[in-house]
Amino acid sequence: MAEVTATETAPGPRITHVRLTPVLIADPPLLNTTGVHQPYTPRLIVEIVTEGGVTGVGETYGDTKYLVLARALADALAGHQVADINGLFTLAGRVCHAEGGGLDVGGTRGVETAEKLRLSVVSAFEVACLDALGKTLGLPVHALLGGKVRDSVEYSAYLFYRWAEHPGGVGERDGWAAALDPAGVVEQARRLVERHGFSSFKLKGGVFAPDEEIAAIRALAEAFLGRPLRLDPNGAWSTETSLYVARELAGVLEYLEDPTTGTPAMAEVAAATGLPLATNMCVTTLAEIPEAFTTGAVQVVLSDHHYWGGLHRTRELAAICRTFGVGVSMHSNFHLGVSLAAMTQVAAAVPHLDHACDSHYPWSTEDVVAEPFTFEDGRIEVSDAPGLGVELDRDRLEFLHRRWLDDDGSLRDRDDLAAMRVARPGWSARRW
Amino acid sequence: MAEVTATETAPGPRITHVRLTPVLIADPPLLNTTGVHQPYTPRLIVEIVTEGGVTGVGETYGDTKYLVLARALADALAGHQVADINGLFTLAGRVCHAEGGGLDVGGTRGVETAEKLRLSVVSAFEVACLDALGKTLGLPVHALLGGKVRDSVEYSAYLFYRWAEHPGGVGERDGWAAALDPAGVVEQARRLVERHGFSSFKLKGGVFAPDEEIAAIRALAEAFLGRPLRLDPNGAWSTETSLYVARELAGVLEYLEDPTTGTPAMAEVAAATGLPLATNMCVTTLAEIPEAFTTGAVQVVLSDHHYWGGLHRTRELAAICRTFGVGVSMHSNFHLGVSLAAMTQVAAAVPHLDHACDSHYPWSTEDVVAEPFTFEDGRIEVSDAPGLGVELDRDRLEFLHRRWLDDDGSLRDRDDLAAMRVARPGWSARRW
Ligand SMILES: [Mg+2]
Ligand SMILES: [Mg+2]
Repeated sequence: MAEVTATETAPGPRITHVRLTPVLIADPPLLNTTGVHQPYTPRLIVEIVTEGGVTGVGETYGDTKYLVLARALADALAGHQVADINGLFTLAGRVCHAEGGGLDVGGTRGVETAEKLRLSVVSAFEVACLDALGKTLGLPVHALLGGKVRDSVEYSAYLFYRWAEHPGGVGERDGWAAALDPAGVVEQARRLVERHGFSSFKLKGGVFAPDEEIAAIRALAEAFLGRPLRLDPNGAWSTETSLYVARELAGVLEYLEDPTTGTPAMAEVAAATGLPLATNMCVTTLAEIPEAFTTGAVQVVLSDHHYWGGLHRTRELAAICRTFGVGVSMHSNFHLGVSLAAMTQVAAAVPHLDHACDSHYPWSTEDVVAEPFTFEDGRIEVSDAPGLGVELDRDRLEFLHRRWLDDDGSLRDRDDLAAMRVARPGWSARRW
Repeated sequence: MAEVTATETAPGPRITHVRLTPVLIADPPLLNTTGVHQPYTPRLIVEIVTEGGVTGVGETYGDTKYLVLARALADALAGHQVADINGLFTLAGRVCHAEGGGLDVGGTRGVETAEKLRLSVVSAFEVACLDALGKTLGLPVHALLGGKVRDSVEYSAYLFYRWAEHPGGVGERDGWAAALDPAGVVEQARRLVERHGFSSFKLKGGVFAPDEEIAAIRALAEAFLGRPLRLDPNGAWSTETSLYVARELAGVLEYLEDPTTGTPAMAEVAAATGLPLATNMCVTTLAEIPEAFTTGAVQVVLSDHHYWGGLHRTRELAAICRTFGVGVSMHSNFHLGVSLAAMTQVAAAVPHLDHACDSHYPWSTEDVVAEPFTFEDGRIEVSDAPGLGVELDRDRLEFLHRRWLDDDGSLRDRDDLAAMRVARPGWSARRW
């Protein structure tokens, strides 16, 4: 129909200004098929301030390309209504001139498009708006998303092959031992369970030859009888290798995550085995859904509210998945407590969340929230406080921002490949 | 994952009690493939009252089966949080023991399932909760749905073959002439345009032989050059007849609505012609979407927020449609101003609403809202007042409820077939 643009006449709080604070946070030497985590990883904290003096906070990826777009959006937001989430996306489409390709995503964030980059930026602003709106109205964010259907959200223990320290001993020490074989993985799992009470496990694979990772999963199955187990090689395997592993681990895994890349290959693996396939690489945009869902390529979509453009859109994604009989859970990249709060609020409001969510949070030794989260029985309690229920620790934020300022630029863009080449010159991502 | 049920600890206003008011409203003798509208049609007005004394209002179908479920839900709602929309559906699943089948839906509301009947009831409560929440927070309903993307919503002129009065002269007179041929339809369209400024047209077909309805559409195309036109025979045609009409009217219609019934037949028609097919019969539940979308059976889904369970779910439906490249617009059954307000608020918050919405509202001569809506250039302005932006006229509500109370039961369930048999004994629904 002939379109008439919305004016800015609706009531509700408006944004007066926006603060962007890029930070570098300590990241352990966790291994994946691309390489190893750098000693520090960039994140961006977004704060919006309303005319009523309320501050809302959000968090997203902090690589340079994200910062450029975030700056453009922040500069355009004065006067925007906090409740106008649709308008936020319209505005971002106008001012965030992202380019597709070229962004180093470490191979694990799926397709690289301008739209997805923009959505990843807008997500932090959307969360900050919902936080500010909730604080203004005295409602938790989940109440703005239809209300919580559970009082706590279950997370899985995210297991990594890892070194004890970064190459050359740089960065922070976190006190964790190396884990490079089945025994090391099981020991890591035991410590995570002791500390956090997890009762399901995900192993980041694609690091060693498939038979070694199969052995690690079998060791976990023996050590934690009957507990849900997952393996995620980030698409490092060929179709043939994927089929081999799927057959070896049928009946052992809850699901196999991104064994291979590309929807047709995933569909082939799914069709040939009874093992459900999960993904945060094959389906990361709405455009990828029709092919993936109609070919049965994935049985579980792991939503990352950063990729998908925030909490409203994560709910919509969940509705799409449910309609097509596809499960939904949550993906995680290295993040702080602001994103954990956002993940927990939206997970609480998604009725058909059938699997424990992923989170790197147990590997964080630094945070920007005043009261870092603790897991009880592997769960995060759903806050009923207004907004997200978190407050920033401004001293910590300043400290981590100072680290970003002081960096010579070498760590401001995450690059697991480059980090690995420090230890192993000539390294390239592994494939089986 | 192991599930923990949500407790009722979150803040926000709670419901103290619910008022249900069934009404009978004057309905003109509009013709369709099933028969003719009765002199009065049942609707249900739902009011929820919060502990803060705020009243929220919603509206849905008023047939007896809806009332039974509405009563059960109303009785269970005391203490429920207004913002807890997810919990409203959970509660309805527990207390509304609907049975599938047996509900006379006049053949035009699509499949009959217990779930859909329940959703149609819950929708009125969901809208009433959003109205109350908006009023409590000082925000329009559209702001609770992500914010308006347009200041007004376009509606199409809904043209009907009709008589001047009901059989035997019963019911109310609305001053409209009979329209039983192309000239009558064009004249009706002219009057609707004069009064309301519509610039697109939908003809309810399935009443006369296809060639007569084709002639009516051609007469409209000549009288209103270049304006979008639609024809909706409510599935009255065989696949062959549908193909014939689609070919005759290719390039003339914006879309053809439910020419035939069943997803396979719709898919066959769609595949064989370039004419987009719209539906409010073939896709009325989430369960029907995968087959319809993957076979290309429909190009536009006409959402009815009553069927779909309210405004949040209408937004989700729109997201699903968008993901699969299917258009979305709005269906209408005979309704009052409360539902028009709800339709307009959600339509304002759906970014990709590509077609003018349907509404019977221009045919209403009675309403329960204090300030009935007026169309300007075929559009309804999007209210920025708190909630839906409507107030009930309690005297009118009481008057229309009194009519329902006084009815001997013969009009409390809409039955277009029975109404037609008053004029034409032995009548049965027509098919070509
Ligand atoms: Mg993954
Ligand atoms: Mg229709």
